[in-house]
Amino acid sequence: MTPESLAEGIRRGERRALAKGITLIESSRPEDELLAARLLDGLSHTEMRGIRVGISGPPGAGKSTLIESLGMLAVGKGVPTAVLAIDPSSRRSGGSILGDKTRMPRLSAHPLAFIRPTATGGATGGVARRTRESMVLLEAAGFELILVETVGVGQSETEVHGMVDLFMLVLLPNAGDELQGIKRGIMELAELLVINKADGPFRHAAETTAAQVCSALPLLHHDVTGWMPRVLLTSAQEEQGIEAVYETIQAFRQRAMENGELKQRRLRQATPWMWERVHDGLRRRFLADPTIRRLVGELEPGVENGTLGAVAAAERLLQHFFGR
Amino acid sequence: MTPESLAEGIRRGERRALAKGITLIESSRPEDELLAARLLDGLSHTEMRGIRVGISGPPGAGKSTLIESLGMLAVGKGVPTAVLAIDPSSRRSGGSILGDKTRMPRLSAHPLAFIRPTATGGATGGVARRTRESMVLLEAAGFELILVETVGVGQSETEVHGMVDLFMLVLLPNAGDELQGIKRGIMELAELLVINKADGPFRHAAETTAAQVCSALPLLHHDVTGWMPRVLLTSAQEEQGIEAVYETIQAFRQRAMENGELKQRRLRQATPWMWERVHDGLRRRFLADPTIRRLVGELEPGVENGTLGAVAAAERLLQHFFGR
Repeated sequence: MTPESLAEGIRRGERRALAKGITLIESSRPEDELLAARLLDGLSHTEMRGIRVGISGPPGAGKSTLIESLGMLAVGKGVPTAVLAIDPSSRRSGGSILGDKTRMPRLSAHPLAFIRPTATGGATGGVARRTRESMVLLEAAGFELILVETVGVGQSETEVHGMVDLFMLVLLPNAGDELQGIKRGIMELAELLVINKADGPFRHAAETTAAQVCSALPLLHHDVTGWMPRVLLTSAQEEQGIEAVYETIQAFRQRAMENGELKQRRLRQATPWMWERVHDGLRRRFLADPTIRRLVGELEPGVENGTLGAVAAAERLLQHFFGR
Repeated sequence: MTPESLAEGIRRGERRALAKGITLIESSRPEDELLAARLLDGLSHTEMRGIRVGISGPPGAGKSTLIESLGMLAVGKGVPTAVLAIDPSSRRSGGSILGDKTRMPRLSAHPLAFIRPTATGGATGGVARRTRESMVLLEAAGFELILVETVGVGQSETEVHGMVDLFMLVLLPNAGDELQGIKRGIMELAELLVINKADGPFRHAAETTAAQVCSALPLLHHDVTGWMPRVLLTSAQEEQGIEAVYETIQAFRQRAMENGELKQRRLRQATPWMWERVHDGLRRRFLADPTIRRLVGELEPGVENGTLGAVAAAERLLQHFFGR
């Protein structure tokens, strides 16, 4: 199957073609690289039908449950919804802790939904290696709501913010004073802040947190002209406040479509995307070089037993690669 | 000044040489690359005098205050202590939110302490770009306790775990059920878990969290033969439990020195370090190529205005770089 016919299948919304396409773009085999580029090129002029939402937040904030509730609401309205779920891989075991079937049981069974779990593999932080490319395929396949989950708090937020239309931060009700310090840089990125688990005994704490967040917000700048970040309370468990989250996402999309910001934002994201691919390509070609592989085989034992310094070994490899 | 004379100055414990050395290894100028490699080579056979402790935890867990208390305790015992503090850079402003002088006022004024704040710069996650190399210099300069702070929860923990002797996780008293799920992979990495802010109204919650953490631990494996991860309660604010943290670190070091695990662990870290330098070197040489820079200048406008796809542009750059 050529990339061009795969692109056609994806545009027709065929699930098999979509899954095959994502597998192709995720492939690290050198022979797939050009095919993947051709596939993406064939899909790059897709109309902006969907909205790409990045969802981050600390562990335990209930991101998966919230994504499932939001997704169920969207598919209930007839909106095709895709989830790029990060499988938090345990570094030691090498496997994932919780499969996505168990994490989003209702949504994964719905015909209008598509869930793609991807192991981060420790490669680029809390965002899977080919998230940008996967979103292109999903949008071409007709998905109108694309939810990208990231794991952890830290680097992954800035990373996911750089590839989505709307960045949503999910917070715990008892966030307290951590909102004041280190998180500020991340809060600044969010168009939508959701205080989840705002139920039962945590309701009051959630309201306090929401008030703190709100009072911090007016000082922050935002990309999207005229959009003030919104703070919402939810209980994904009890399905409270999910409609408001959905409506806020749609209101944002409407506005960003009208004032051209959606298009501008995607254009601003293109250059970092280009660099990401360049850096990835450099690594892959280095590793694919047979003489480099031989030299690695010669040098690694010395690095492992301490007779050769890591920095000295790296210098030798680089000089060899560029020396020819 | 040659790298060799700089190395001598560092070995003599000269602060000026140390600061200059760290600046050299952090430099991204191509002409500094080889000098930095020579400096590191000259220091690579330093005796393992110190212990490198990585400190991670969610925002708001009080990492800075804990580091300052622990550092003050150590310098009070005459132990030269260095802190590699991460300046959480705000992506939008490009600057840091809190200077380290304000974050660790007492420690930064102490003659036996050395605090080096480094902006993460969005480069490699929550760990600064040259943390491994900085630790080599600090240990050569005679620092016996080296504390490496990381920002956020997520990728940075596995990253910092891969470069320190002991990985310490600082948790909030009200961690609750997030300990059960996503955090497991990170908990597995920790030799020492500290529930901080265990004071006042949070004391009880901290004890509950500690009990939960303890009950989860026996299932986990650890690198260091015979070392069972420890769980401690602290209040950095009220300086409670800091002595126990210090003693646990020293007990770990003692044991890991005796059974050879400290050496083994550092050797295991050498190969990933080599690869990190290789990947960094690939990027730098690509960017230093004048014809690539020219081609980037030609292609970028098209990527920015949407007439050229990011993936297609990346392919052209790579083909050009490797085509010659």
